[in-house]
Amino acid sequence: MSFYSKRDLNFQLFENQKVLDLVKYPYFKDHSEETFQMVLEAADKIAEHALKPLMTEMDRNEPQLVNGKIMVHEGMKKILRQFGEDGWINATFDYDDGGQQLPNTLHMASGFIFQAANYSASVYPFLTTGAANLIRTFGSKELVKRFTPNMYSGKWQGTMALTEPDAGSSLSDLTTTAYPTDMEGIYKIIGQKIYISCGDHDACENVIHLMLARIKGSPAGVKGISLFVVPQKRVPNGEPNDVLTEGVYHKMGYKGAPIAHLMIGTNDGCEGYLVGEANKGLSYMFQMMNEARVGVGMNATAIGTAAYYTSLAYAKERPQGRRIGDKDPNKPQVPIIQHADVKRMLLFQKSITEGALSLLLFCSKLGDIVHVSEGKEKEEKSLLLDFLTPIAKSYPSEMCCLTTSAAIQILGGAGYTSDFPVEQYYREARIHPIHEGTTGIHGLDLLGRKMLMHEGKALKLFVRELYKTIEEAIVIEVLKPFGKKLEKYLNSGQQVGLHLISKASAAPEEFLADATLFLEYLGILTIAWQWLKQGVTVQKNMALENQESEFYKGKMMCLRYFYEYELVKMDALGKRLISEEMPTIDMKEEWF
Amino acid sequence: MSFYSKRDLNFQLFENQKVLDLVKYPYFKDHSEETFQMVLEAADKIAEHALKPLMTEMDRNEPQLVNGKIMVHEGMKKILRQFGEDGWINATFDYDDGGQQLPNTLHMASGFIFQAANYSASVYPFLTTGAANLIRTFGSKELVKRFTPNMYSGKWQGTMALTEPDAGSSLSDLTTTAYPTDMEGIYKIIGQKIYISCGDHDACENVIHLMLARIKGSPAGVKGISLFVVPQKRVPNGEPNDVLTEGVYHKMGYKGAPIAHLMIGTNDGCEGYLVGEANKGLSYMFQMMNEARVGVGMNATAIGTAAYYTSLAYAKERPQGRRIGDKDPNKPQVPIIQHADVKRMLLFQKSITEGALSLLLFCSKLGDIVHVSEGKEKEEKSLLLDFLTPIAKSYPSEMCCLTTSAAIQILGGAGYTSDFPVEQYYREARIHPIHEGTTGIHGLDLLGRKMLMHEGKALKLFVRELYKTIEEAIVIEVLKPFGKKLEKYLNSGQQVGLHLISKASAAPEEFLADATLFLEYLGILTIAWQWLKQGVTVQKNMALENQESEFYKGKMMCLRYFYEYELVKMDALGKRLISEEMPTIDMKEEWF
Repeated sequence: MSFYSKRDLNFQLFENQKVLDLVKYPYFKDHSEETFQMVLEAADKIAEHALKPLMTEMDRNEPQLVNGKIMVHEGMKKILRQFGEDGWINATFDYDDGGQQLPNTLHMASGFIFQAANYSASVYPFLTTGAANLIRTFGSKELVKRFTPNMYSGKWQGTMALTEPDAGSSLSDLTTTAYPTDMEGIYKIIGQKIYISCGDHDACENVIHLMLARIKGSPAGVKGISLFVVPQKRVPNGEPNDVLTEGVYHKMGYKGAPIAHLMIGTNDGCEGYLVGEANKGLSYMFQMMNEARVGVGMNATAIGTAAYYTSLAYAKERPQGRRIGDKDPNKPQVPIIQHADVKRMLLFQKSITEGALSLLLFCSKLGDIVHVSEGKEKEEKSLLLDFLTPIAKSYPSEMCCLTTSAAIQILGGAGYTSDFPVEQYYREARIHPIHEGTTGIHGLDLLGRKMLMHEGKALKLFVRELYKTIEEAIVIEVLKPFGKKLEKYLNSGQQVGLHLISKASAAPEEFLADATLFLEYLGILTIAWQWLKQGVTVQKNMALENQESEFYKGKMMCLRYFYEYELVKMDALGKRLISEEMPTIDMKEEWF
Repeated sequence: MSFYSKRDLNFQLFENQKVLDLVKYPYFKDHSEETFQMVLEAADKIAEHALKPLMTEMDRNEPQLVNGKIMVHEGMKKILRQFGEDGWINATFDYDDGGQQLPNTLHMASGFIFQAANYSASVYPFLTTGAANLIRTFGSKELVKRFTPNMYSGKWQGTMALTEPDAGSSLSDLTTTAYPTDMEGIYKIIGQKIYISCGDHDACENVIHLMLARIKGSPAGVKGISLFVVPQKRVPNGEPNDVLTEGVYHKMGYKGAPIAHLMIGTNDGCEGYLVGEANKGLSYMFQMMNEARVGVGMNATAIGTAAYYTSLAYAKERPQGRRIGDKDPNKPQVPIIQHADVKRMLLFQKSITEGALSLLLFCSKLGDIVHVSEGKEKEEKSLLLDFLTPIAKSYPSEMCCLTTSAAIQILGGAGYTSDFPVEQYYREARIHPIHEGTTGIHGLDLLGRKMLMHEGKALKLFVRELYKTIEEAIVIEVLKPFGKKLEKYLNSGQQVGLHLISKASAAPEEFLADATLFLEYLGILTIAWQWLKQGVTVQKNMALENQESEFYKGKMMCLRYFYEYELVKMDALGKRLISEEMPTIDMKEEWF
């Protein structure tokens, strides 16, 4: 059963986002449509043959803590080696780092395929990539040499070790402490970390934590946080480094990946190696975290996509009921895809997942350009990416909880049983509004920070980008009404934004009380923009290749669906956002 | 940890729905506030001491099929006997049936307590009640005598056996066949049934299926369906009746209740006993099903309530972050209930679950009045109940998927782990939009049937009921704006309804394409009405008992929340519902 659409992914990359633009930059000059297609084909092959077959098994056989070690599915070891050998882990890195200077956009597109096939399995190598990237970007040559080669090969697991029992959303409150030693750059680390994805498991030979801790004597809050490499076993001698696995979390979904509770330096024997400068750890981490956040949006979208294709296949095959107005019980039943309500649930899934994929690849391409460009181009793309990141993380995460729910609904009772994978997709989708910053945190980030930063410059760039698409659309007859509609909602959006910003200094609590709703509000606008962008591409390409008209017709109908059923939700949200009533502020704890 | 609020349940029953009105009817004359309170206290006791302690255990130890028998949690046997001995199963039945003539409203309120404590366990006795009720209402005296006493005692399990592999939403397509025998009223049954809740288990001594089948030669469709009592073991001799358990479904949630796949008459040895007249089975079943549908709404609400109280307790205790504007990292963190966004998620849960509970008890009371009244009163209450049933089933079912999700979000990463019960509530909530008719089916029922029936008389009664509350509200100063707002939305609602109905004959597919959205639309209006009703009660009672002002203040804030955040959603839905664009009809299978 297909779990994503090659045709759509090709459309998104090559037709809509024009990813080949990137090879004009010297850094990517060795790449071409051919190398990109090879990457996608290779990803498809691993996904189909190595990842997908284990998806259900890994869900049914959760990681277990046995004698202080987390045991994961036996298939993971082979998968990790394959990811290493095939060069996936450092594919986007410089040639000097053994990488292929692959645009991150292609890495994200490949990730999308992996995540749709087996979300849990896809997490392991992606975490290693992120951790290795921190070391090679901010660490000393010595750290790079000591730790990264075995990470690239898939032998060692990388992690991001941030969360602590009292420091989740409020990362600035972390208390894990680093004590200087006689040796420069080497610290004794003492503390504990929770919810560490792939924080320990038996499919690798060592775990390399990129860990946040506060150097003894550093200031409280965000300004006193440093970044350390903390290996599970010391390198090169392989002795234990006093990082103990206290427990493994049992979770609702995403069960194939082990989430660990770690005790660090319990016996005063944990060495950590400072990455870059002291007290700059959070800013280092955030440079990677932004990529990880777009990555979370992609995870959610991939899971939503797999659920969509499962429910689509079911809807085509399952006979039930008859067309409206046809009540003759002697006639055969029709496949449920003929019912408007089922098509509505399919269009909902298709419009959300394909709209989100469009945004995520747009953001990935921005990231690539930021990486290889200079001056004004770099600055503007960087600001635009910063602005879009909370939306790219949160909209797909929130909405794919609903699209996977729609997939269950199409299957009915069958969808609630473990005979079909949609219930697993539903459980796995639910993590994404939580990790890498909850939706609430991203709402505050968007409204409280991104809207205002650089005197609203990022916002202006966002608005400009929408107008660019609107201008392209309104000269195409069939797209004109959609262009006009988007313009209208963009205008309302700006008014709502100004209304909120006007409260920022005088009434900061009111300003931010509905930040989560504002994030949803701008999320809908953003995806409507991405759909219009797809519409423009479709209209331009339809003239060229009539033979593919079914795919394009589906795209056009999905655009119509989104503007009819989703965009209107901005009316309700906008009305709420400009209201002066503040029940969520006025409510008191003792009244609940 | 509390899983529901006694204070709120008392408010809902005695203050808001004025359930004591019922004791004016002769049938309920032996009851009083005292007997009602005794019932609620008894329910609380079982829930707290027998049901709640097994909730998690039953989820972790799913029923298993062992040698053709489904084995369930060992605690269920004791629970079922206790329900029998304490008279819960036939509490609402006539004195002549050994019952207590308890109003169904109280039975539903008790059910709410049971379901909030342990949804899976609560299902077993409720199913037996429903099955026994069918036998005593439509069956012969002989069937009543033979089957019901052991059902009342909790020794035998009752079921509703409707669904078949090719007949789910389209029940009229069922093919299980009943062949007449030489003995009157006795048939040989051959077929199979799937998704039969409590269809087989080892906590009872016999299973009594109330099964739909088609008598050989009966017409196709709904007009040829009959109802049979089909025991698992014959009565009184206890011999097997050729009802074999083919399998047990493994499900995402609601794991403590066994859902069976049954083969009937495989060896030509299954006897079924006709209930009432031939070919009237579906109408019998539907008289019970309406009650079951209100019951499903209650299940969802109970689960949502338990999740709400879990997240409320967590939010009061969990310190994380600081108030907006206070960034001093040296100050202690504050409990997250102080953050507006967390209060928003709590108010969302509170407003949905308490609004839904209000509607469900209103419906239950209507049912009681229909049961014991005559003439115009009976007719009008019956029509109003029919109209409200799809809403009472679907709004809580759909919304409590979202409220349990909000509960997870408040707990963050902890909510996604099995260390807290919210992830179980989230999984359990998801069944309700599916069983007893999917949301899509109820949309069609509301728009295609209930809106039009008796020339719109049910609709008129609904509108009248809302105006009654609006009139009470607008004379109370503080409620006037809410009354006006509800009136405005009621007017828009009528316009939207008329617009849709105008298409009923000329364009039936367009008329019904968005029936699910119309159901959501009227659902919001209905709950807004129930909140206004609660507001009226609060304002009247606040004058009397100032000492309880915190509870009442919470109610008023929740009313404000609902009108600010939920009612506005009708704007977006209404806009969509009057649009002439029909992408869900225009979309073609091959374009997906």
